[in-house]
Amino acid sequence: MHIGMIGLGKMGFNLALNLKEHNHTVTAFDKDNTSVEKIQAEGINGVSSIEALVQTLPKPRVIWLMVPAGEITEGVINETAGLLEAGDILIDGGNSNYKESVRRAEQLAEKGIYFFDCGTSGGMEGARNGACTMIGGDEEVFKVIEPLFKDITVDNGYLYAGKSGSGHFLKMVHNGVEYGMMQAIAEGFDILEKSSFDFDYEKVARVWNNGSVIRSWLMELTESAFSKDAKLDELKGVMHSSGEGKWTVETALDLQAAAPVITMSLMMRYRSLEQDTFSGKVVAALRNEFGGHAVEKK
Amino acid sequence: MHIGMIGLGKMGFNLALNLKEHNHTVTAFDKDNTSVEKIQAEGINGVSSIEALVQTLPKPRVIWLMVPAGEITEGVINETAGLLEAGDILIDGGNSNYKESVRRAEQLAEKGIYFFDCGTSGGMEGARNGACTMIGGDEEVFKVIEPLFKDITVDNGYLYAGKSGSGHFLKMVHNGVEYGMMQAIAEGFDILEKSSFDFDYEKVARVWNNGSVIRSWLMELTESAFSKDAKLDELKGVMHSSGEGKWTVETALDLQAAAPVITMSLMMRYRSLEQDTFSGKVVAALRNEFGGHAVEKK
Repeated sequence: MHIGMIGLGKMGFNLALNLKEHNHTVTAFDKDNTSVEKIQAEGINGVSSIEALVQTLPKPRVIWLMVPAGEITEGVINETAGLLEAGDILIDGGNSNYKESVRRAEQLAEKGIYFFDCGTSGGMEGARNGACTMIGGDEEVFKVIEPLFKDITVDNGYLYAGKSGSGHFLKMVHNGVEYGMMQAIAEGFDILEKSSFDFDYEKVARVWNNGSVIRSWLMELTESAFSKDAKLDELKGVMHSSGEGKWTVETALDLQAAAPVITMSLMMRYRSLEQDTFSGKVVAALRNEFGGHAVEKK
Repeated sequence: MHIGMIGLGKMGFNLALNLKEHNHTVTAFDKDNTSVEKIQAEGINGVSSIEALVQTLPKPRVIWLMVPAGEITEGVINETAGLLEAGDILIDGGNSNYKESVRRAEQLAEKGIYFFDCGTSGGMEGARNGACTMIGGDEEVFKVIEPLFKDITVDNGYLYAGKSGSGHFLKMVHNGVEYGMMQAIAEGFDILEKSSFDFDYEKVARVWNNGSVIRSWLMELTESAFSKDAKLDELKGVMHSSGEGKWTVETALDLQAAAPVITMSLMMRYRSLEQDTFSGKVVAALRNEFGGHAVEKK
């Protein structure tokens, strides 16, 4: 198949190589010309505009977007859609909010363009050698692009999830679960670190990865991290987040689903971004007010 | 090696078979004579008392306990220790509280008996075909029994964790992490179930197990559970617990380690045991008191 790839960041670049390796023809574009040159050096046809990309592709066109969620995705979809015709297929492989994907699918359907929301997991390594994807959109038209997903994912690594939005919804919840699992693992090691025992965390993660109930890819990554820095001395415990955890919690609120662990994982990330907290000052002040308990002053 | 196995429940029975398969001689005892007869049918020597078991073993004796934690373990250890001599080795492979294991190691050391606390993970299947074990106790004497652990675990599936108590401590924290991971997975599926999408949970678990960040043995078990009962219609959402989660939270409190996700996982288990809650009644009553908000009456 001949695919247009828009966005050659860490994910898109590796996905393009993965597609090429599976004998697909890729025409690639990125607004950063350096990335285009880099992909050309890999034997992939690079173009300098979305217009050129659209012109290069046979009809019906299949275009895969791998650009940052939000305004950039919105802008790229609008520009691309303006150049497409009825019957063309647009796949958003980024981490868009599922509500946006539902809206985009409806808007593009008016022009006869088929929009697929595709959640992609597995990181860079997955994009290159076998990703995990969850796809929402038209079930019949999905069959046209199904070979692509079969090729670029690991065995059983893609799922047609249902109507538009379902792919990004699944990926969002996947990330929410990921937040909870990561925080649970982290709290476990924090308890080990505060104990009077002298554990070797790399060895602990290794034994937990071999035969235990909590063996998992995240625990393998934990083992890898401790193998490089036995006590993570070189890191700060600052936990950034990129949106899906927050969306999962917002969705849980909308659905009145009790999801305290995923919520708490997100809150602990926010807490980690602050050196000191205003809530801490309020509690300290109140203890002082009613009980004369000592406060720590700056 | 010739090992005495005390306790032929699901774990001990399978462990005895595992040891036999690796060419160790096992003499087994359980207070339930049916289990003893069952293991004899498997070609393992069964005896009818701890005394007989101790008499059968060559010195220094190696005895493996696989009995329920708490009073039963305490009773069996006291009875067994009364029959042992200096130099003998006692392994507690159950889920004892690590503080008890520290105390027992000290008490038994006074008699010259080497006590090892061994946390065992991997369930029945692991006990039979390759478990995961974490062992605390005397480092030099551990070398004597190390071949046993090498044989009955999966590759890299055992860890000499350090001084007495460290094995059960690690297993305890492992279970705390397990609580958090399970609750995170469960909340994710709860959000899917409350959404307007129509997901096939077995397929969702399968795709999440292939190439995704949250792939894990627990997700494989999730896939297996949904394959048997697509919406778990046959189950009640009652979540029992067996002690280690509570101990992990108690330990976090003692160590002043912030572990909100593991704690919340435990609290959600407690919540699941109640059909209605007194706290719910209190909040409903208060909303009615200050705002005249409607209450639901029995």
